[in-house]
Amino acid sequence: MSTKQELLQNPIQHIDIKQHNVVALVDAMNHMAYSSRDLARAATIYDMMLRDTECGVILCLAGSLISAGLKQVIIDLLRNNMVDAIVSTGANIVDQDFFEALGFKHYVAGEEYKYGAGDAELREMMIDRIYDTFIDEEELRICDETTEKIINGMKPGAYSSREFIKEMGKYLAENGRTPKNGNEDSIVLAAYELNIPIFCPAFSDCSFGFGIVAHQHARQGKPMCSIDSGKDFYELTQLKIQNPTTGLLMIGGGVPKNFAQDIVVAADILGVEASMHKYAIQITVADARDGALSGSTLKEASSWGKVDLTWEQMVYSEATIALPLIAGYAYHKKAYAARTAKAFAQVLEPVTA
Amino acid sequence: MSTKQELLQNPIQHIDIKQHNVVALVDAMNHMAYSSRDLARAATIYDMMLRDTECGVILCLAGSLISAGLKQVIIDLLRNNMVDAIVSTGANIVDQDFFEALGFKHYVAGEEYKYGAGDAELREMMIDRIYDTFIDEEELRICDETTEKIINGMKPGAYSSREFIKEMGKYLAENGRTPKNGNEDSIVLAAYELNIPIFCPAFSDCSFGFGIVAHQHARQGKPMCSIDSGKDFYELTQLKIQNPTTGLLMIGGGVPKNFAQDIVVAADILGVEASMHKYAIQITVADARDGALSGSTLKEASSWGKVDLTWEQMVYSEATIALPLIAGYAYHKKAYAARTAKAFAQVLEPVTA
Amino acid sequence: MSTKQELLQNPIQHIDIKQHNVVALVDAMNHMAYSSRDLARAATIYDMMLRDTECGVILCLAGSLISAGLKQVIIDLLRNNMVDAIVSTGANIVDQDFFEALGFKHYVAGEEYKYGAGDAELREMMIDRIYDTFIDEEELRICDETTEKIINGMKPGAYSSREFIKEMGKYLAENGRTPKNGNEDSIVLAAYELNIPIFCPAFSDCSFGFGIVAHQHARQGKPMCSIDSGKDFYELTQLKIQNPTTGLLMIGGGVPKNFAQDIVVAADILGVEASMHKYAIQITVADARDGALSGSTLKEASSWGKVDLTWEQMVYSEATIALPLIAGYAYHKKAYAARTAKAFAQVLEPVTA
Amino acid sequence: MSTKQELLQNPIQHIDIKQHNVVALVDAMNHMAYSSRDLARAATIYDMMLRDTECGVILCLAGSLISAGLKQVIIDLLRNNMVDAIVSTGANIVDQDFFEALGFKHYVAGEEYKYGAGDAELREMMIDRIYDTFIDEEELRICDETTEKIINGMKPGAYSSREFIKEMGKYLAENGRTPKNGNEDSIVLAAYELNIPIFCPAFSDCSFGFGIVAHQHARQGKPMCSIDSGKDFYELTQLKIQNPTTGLLMIGGGVPKNFAQDIVVAADILGVEASMHKYAIQITVADARDGALSGSTLKEASSWGKVDLTWEQMVYSEATIALPLIAGYAYHKKAYAARTAKAFAQVLEPVTA
Repeated sequence: MSTKQELLQNPIQHIDIKQHNVVALVDAMNHMAYSSRDLARAATIYDMMLRDTECGVILCLAGSLISAGLKQVIIDLLRNNMVDAIVSTGANIVDQDFFEALGFKHYVAGEEYKYGAGDAELREMMIDRIYDTFIDEEELRICDETTEKIINGMKPGAYSSREFIKEMGKYLAENGRTPKNGNEDSIVLAAYELNIPIFCPAFSDCSFGFGIVAHQHARQGKPMCSIDSGKDFYELTQLKIQNPTTGLLMIGGGVPKNFAQDIVVAADILGVEASMHKYAIQITVADARDGALSGSTLKEASSWGKVDLTWEQMVYSEATIALPLIAGYAYHKKAYAARTAKAFAQVLEPVTA
Repeated sequence: MSTKQELLQNPIQHIDIKQHNVVALVDAMNHMAYSSRDLARAATIYDMMLRDTECGVILCLAGSLISAGLKQVIIDLLRNNMVDAIVSTGANIVDQDFFEALGFKHYVAGEEYKYGAGDAELREMMIDRIYDTFIDEEELRICDETTEKIINGMKPGAYSSREFIKEMGKYLAENGRTPKNGNEDSIVLAAYELNIPIFCPAFSDCSFGFGIVAHQHARQGKPMCSIDSGKDFYELTQLKIQNPTTGLLMIGGGVPKNFAQDIVVAADILGVEASMHKYAIQITVADARDGALSGSTLKEASSWGKVDLTWEQMVYSEATIALPLIAGYAYHKKAYAARTAKAFAQVLEPVTA
Repeated sequence: MSTKQELLQNPIQHIDIKQHNVVALVDAMNHMAYSSRDLARAATIYDMMLRDTECGVILCLAGSLISAGLKQVIIDLLRNNMVDAIVSTGANIVDQDFFEALGFKHYVAGEEYKYGAGDAELREMMIDRIYDTFIDEEELRICDETTEKIINGMKPGAYSSREFIKEMGKYLAENGRTPKNGNEDSIVLAAYELNIPIFCPAFSDCSFGFGIVAHQHARQGKPMCSIDSGKDFYELTQLKIQNPTTGLLMIGGGVPKNFAQDIVVAADILGVEASMHKYAIQITVADARDGALSGSTLKEASSWGKVDLTWEQMVYSEATIALPLIAGYAYHKKAYAARTAKAFAQVLEPVTA
Repeated sequence: MSTKQELLQNPIQHIDIKQHNVVALVDAMNHMAYSSRDLARAATIYDMMLRDTECGVILCLAGSLISAGLKQVIIDLLRNNMVDAIVSTGANIVDQDFFEALGFKHYVAGEEYKYGAGDAELREMMIDRIYDTFIDEEELRICDETTEKIINGMKPGAYSSREFIKEMGKYLAENGRTPKNGNEDSIVLAAYELNIPIFCPAFSDCSFGFGIVAHQHARQGKPMCSIDSGKDFYELTQLKIQNPTTGLLMIGGGVPKNFAQDIVVAADILGVEASMHKYAIQITVADARDGALSGSTLKEASSWGKVDLTWEQMVYSEATIALPLIAGYAYHKKAYAARTAKAFAQVLEPVTA
């Protein structure tokens, strides 16, 4: 039987799309069939989004993507002005990205653990498993505690997840968890530095939730912080109103997909006639046939007035394969060159700026 | 081309498990293979949960289930003391159940609409589509507005989704949207009457979100209501602490699955050694191979210390087929007969009670 | 570690649809959404096929269905005049049905074997695994040898799979492997007794293949038997020509689906203008998005002129759940009452009859 | 409404892996999670197969791969000595590869046709659809007729599919359907020139089936040709016996997967202790949970003694994305450089050679 140390020695390494020019490969896929053609069309649509300099690009993240080696892809999209806002599950942002920003790693699990054969012993060793990946649960507890510490440092009040995540970015910057200091770059840090807002509409459903529960437990009866998820929705809708042309780059489905689509309707409710998302791409393996939102087609979203029919594309592929190709295509086509950073976080905090 | 009226004339009818004794059928499936055996084992585990009278049963709902004809199944589980708490996506509770409680319906869409061929014309008519089901968007707007009205009637402050949903139940009771008054029964009403708490951890991500956005927009600068999603987590964790033996009946994955599993860890963080969920069932068609939480096995959850390995079962089936069989099995076995209602909502409001 | 005997003690038991009247349940599903509605519509179409007394019903079988507990369902369809011809993978007919007819069983495998954890030790014990089911490989070898014995007893020549399978039926009848003699009923026997032809278009790809290889090896240089798969196609096409109205009840996809659909085109090539299959149902979990035939929609088949668009239905469900409901529905509706047995095997052997 | 000519103007173009060096990209994927890591491991195993110069590589093809733009990938594997035998569905070899070798094309179908909206009008125009791809049915009929012509030219008797396909290759060579003559290269031609045997175990289930049916119909009562599918099995087993070390590169599942795996058992039945397939890779999106062979894990195959556990890898991906990466990796690593061509077709015809 392996020891904990033996099991946690082969870290996940994040793919660097800057090193792989896939433009010709993806262009070739455009003349094939099935998923390859869909993938190529999606890459082309992402390229169009970026060339349409008015378009605000919203990246949606669901599924365990950062633990899977896609962190650097997202960072590269942020640092190259290819994304203007993020809507994500909490796990990607806190348990995985912020966790790694604190200096921790995810680890490759051997094939034999993939189907659950060793889960009882993993439990004993406090190793958490995500399919074929290991996490040291003791390190994850430090991440939970760090979020509590950050919350404790804030003025009591109701905050959007974006405001909390901004504080997390500030924490990383102020504590030297930066490339400048020899540490790894992170999504939370890059977004903080670049004024790119990150929203987690179900923010208590992650490591941050443990922090807020601990915080509220300690402050019982006293002024405390709370997550105002309505404010999340309000803020993201403001961005739609201020920047009417929008495009969605969605990895996975879930709450982020629904939430980002819904701002079109929310704007309408606030009395502003908002245009549908002009561009929309989704990478997913979810089936449409169970009627759930995660796998529902973007055509279906158009019946709701959320997504325009002209430039939408579903890509049926697991994201670790498809995203490096789609993001790498757009990166190497340099479509971002003509864009000016939208710095959407500033839009939301005009006074502070 | 059909008119809106023609398209919206064949309402979805909710299956009534009380009319179909499937015990012998499901017992027969226990000796077969693949999904039928898994389904039978899941039904048996649900039966066990109910016979274990200490066990608090948490029902998790993700996917568009209520619009699909599963509303009465859930109501029957509530009214027969087979569920003690609900964790759900907002859409099931607000856009679908509360929506129908207001007197509206979902409609059968013809086969030819299923793959998106008519979405442009549906848009024109303000008909929203969920795979093979239609909704009148004008009616949905009334639902949005009703939630705003309810929020406007509340004292400014930060509330858990449970507290808001309780208000929605009160609204239905006070406005005669009850079976007693000749109207249809609803999940929100039944839960209100029976003190069964309903949590929507991503509560702004549904019709209620439109209500809260409109509310906050109108109240700018003045005291207002906010959704405190941390409080959701805190409250559900309290239930775990007060009622240590728990079982999960999960339809679909997403945030509800993760959130309900996480309370074991949250209790631990509050310094209470909590036992893992003793029983866990999930009905899903999500694939495990993309590593996302929705399709991840319950064995994987056991490595996180969230779910016990002994009585867990994944059922690979679309829910409209599997749930009537599993719920119907437990209903007709009458396992609930020995249970006392836990009335968990009272646990959370000792003073008010 | 368990012994072989311990692992092989819990036999798969075949579900008996005659015991479960699911008519009301399935009728209720007709007013729901997603797979339940599709399933109900498919059941209705199967009922229509049977009421259309001119319609020849072709049952297609792919996937390991017999080992999974669906044998009695198929036998009941045959013995109640609800199927007129079968097109199947070889495994279902030979390795599984004929195998059980010889007195052997399939066994329930424990949950812990499902994902491959014990495959190395199973290998040592000569236990073969199909997902969650065990087979004694030594018994399977006897099945292989029996097919060789049957082939050895035939006059050298090129035979269709149908002719071979008829011989297998005769073997069972003559060796007392019949219910009359206290043995279990089988598909091969019932089809033999009722003149229902069974085709396995890829007949060397199963236990029979081992028999024919051994036979041909022993007969090298001497007259021998061969499987003439062209004759299979020719014979099935003759049935289409003689009985123009046809319906397909397909469980799974693969070669049987394609083969049965193709006879429409084959008739055309023989100069007979054949009508498309008037009815078509397929139960499958295969995805359409990889372009493969198994998951391709029946609408796609209509572009090939193989399946009529009016009465076709895909059902997205694993077969062990869906087939008992669909077959049980049609059985209890007694649509077969007005039918006369088509005895298609006699059509193919007018002289012998 | 578009005309037939308008619909058939954008031909599928086959990807050329020689133009895309994906080695660094795939190596990077080896350190990620989920499908990307599986894909990288599969590529590595294919590379190992080729470096193990004793290993005979058997390529299995199921699903509509050639119509999807993967023809040139397969040709490149053949012409660079990276494959020693092929087991395929008939459609890939006859309806698609041989069809294109006759000068015909497959065409890109617009997004709007993908879900079946235009199938009725396609039918009228005699355009056949494979998901997002069009075929001119009139051209396909010429393909059918050509196979009949080839059969008519052969001496009456029972042939393996391999022997028929060799004749098809000879036909192409003798009729100038060769690159030398300015025509496109094809799998059938390349295999013919390189003595690489191609087996289609369900050979009547494709365009060739139409040819054999027409042939047998015309020859009724006279000596005729037949497809001896037992001979297919016998021949492939001979290859396993003569070249004990084998590896499987499987695209899709179905009959080819089962057939190629079964030769280990067949050898055993012929009294030759054969080793399991030493290497095995499968690219598929089929789910394991329905118990069907197509999606069954290679671990399961090891319980049957067919596939060794050490070097096996399932890759969960649609083939048009995964195969160019896996095949391209092995091609650019030049593992084939040290191999001598096995020319397995000569092994099967020692006298003719």
